[in-house]
Amino acid sequence: MLGTDTRILIVGLGLIGGSYAEGLKKVGFEVGAVTRSQKTLDYALEKGIIDSGTIEVTREYVSRFDIVVFALYPHVFLSWIRDYQDFIKPGALLTDVTGVKRAVVYEVQGMLRPDLEFVGAHPMAGREVYGVENADCGIFEGANYIVTPTEANTEAAVRTCEDLGRALGFGCISRLSPEHHDEMIGFLSQLTHCIAVALMNSKESHHLVDFTGDSFRDLTRIARINDGMWSELFMLNRDELLSQMDLFAEKFGELRDALEAGDTDKMRGMMRISTERRGYFDKRK
Amino acid sequence: MLGTDTRILIVGLGLIGGSYAEGLKKVGFEVGAVTRSQKTLDYALEKGIIDSGTIEVTREYVSRFDIVVFALYPHVFLSWIRDYQDFIKPGALLTDVTGVKRAVVYEVQGMLRPDLEFVGAHPMAGREVYGVENADCGIFEGANYIVTPTEANTEAAVRTCEDLGRALGFGCISRLSPEHHDEMIGFLSQLTHCIAVALMNSKESHHLVDFTGDSFRDLTRIARINDGMWSELFMLNRDELLSQMDLFAEKFGELRDALEAGDTDKMRGMMRISTERRGYFDKRK
Repeated sequence: MLGTDTRILIVGLGLIGGSYAEGLKKVGFEVGAVTRSQKTLDYALEKGIIDSGTIEVTREYVSRFDIVVFALYPHVFLSWIRDYQDFIKPGALLTDVTGVKRAVVYEVQGMLRPDLEFVGAHPMAGREVYGVENADCGIFEGANYIVTPTEANTEAAVRTCEDLGRALGFGCISRLSPEHHDEMIGFLSQLTHCIAVALMNSKESHHLVDFTGDSFRDLTRIARINDGMWSELFMLNRDELLSQMDLFAEKFGELRDALEAGDTDKMRGMMRISTERRGYFDKRK
Repeated sequence: MLGTDTRILIVGLGLIGGSYAEGLKKVGFEVGAVTRSQKTLDYALEKGIIDSGTIEVTREYVSRFDIVVFALYPHVFLSWIRDYQDFIKPGALLTDVTGVKRAVVYEVQGMLRPDLEFVGAHPMAGREVYGVENADCGIFEGANYIVTPTEANTEAAVRTCEDLGRALGFGCISRLSPEHHDEMIGFLSQLTHCIAVALMNSKESHHLVDFTGDSFRDLTRIARINDGMWSELFMLNRDELLSQMDLFAEKFGELRDALEAGDTDKMRGMMRISTERRGYFDKRK
């Protein structure tokens, strides 16, 4: 359970880690941080985003915290657990912010000390900017926070993890299995990023800038992408994303073939389906 | 040239025709209308969107106007010219709002009386609502207005057509050949609509509504589509749109294959291109 004396350690002070730190400190928790850069640490201390921090991972520092939140690239997160889990306080709760879950949750739970518990979480918030300098806990307001419990988790730990999301001001907190999470994120986020990237790659579009309307801008906003992070997330959700890409390519091909064949009925049918389905997304907005 | 005594006839009082009428009347022109529906006509007269109007196309009414703006579905526009061009005042200027240009401009110019002149135009504004009840000349503010002159046009008529765009408050007025227009609109608008339609067709996504973030909403906003109008516009730009769809499908396939092969370098390269190109579109926003 979260209490006023709960000490929270954020490992990784990027945009999300920094925003977690800021938000949790704001509501009264003692917040510490581990980061690799002295500059980042100095900035976070100076701005009052954290209470304390270190660039050296030591047992003395890490063992002070009751909850550890990992806001790292997936492969860095997994190495950290391998290298430093011995430093963590017995009975501590671990959670994360990683955008894919199957590849991370089962891996971490499989190697964790039996007296520690890891509950996966995915705060569905982000910006097209990076780094602690852009940290802003306002990005969580109204956003989705998904917890991905497994059979290895206790109800108490899952609830604490949900409370963390509540403390950060998320608008909608829900539970999904790692499998359902990865299917959902594959469709709603990864596939759409793939589409935007492929679209921007298909034409040298500089000469079209003056004619661009809102729909193209909206559709390609996410074409500005952190290639290191996204390629890693894609690889860690490869099977699911590939199957979604294939499904999309099939439907896109059907529309293309209907156009080539002059099959207006088929085109109109697909447009009516898309209009109807898109309607769901407006109603709940 | 546009003068204070220029009489403008709008043929077709849908969203765009109605918004043209409202905007042109507001800046002082006498605005008439031809529409097929008595209800539409009554509404437009009652709201003061037009000065006069008719549901019967007569020589007496049509011949009073110096400029005729066609805001009809493309095939209805072409029939109208065939059936009623004899009624138009000698020396009048004709223009339109059609979203494809090659299939309309050359066709109309090819069958027009020699004493009439048609200058194609495309106001790049629209909403996901229809009908004169939603008419609002505010939608043109800051939007693009493209004139598509051909060798059949005089400089004077092209300028008058541009003045019309200025009078309506468009933000950027430019000239493109019908060919360049159709290439541009194929990429920036039609292809993006095809993508959104195919995406919504690829998964029954109702169960994902609660998890939807802004990027998916932005990308699929245009999946709500008027199937009658868009299928017609697609068919009239079929060659160009097919070649753009093929180009996109090729790039999407490259990204897919890179993911399957675990070729992170290739994926990252495509992401860097998309990030760089998307940057052009922000700078001028």
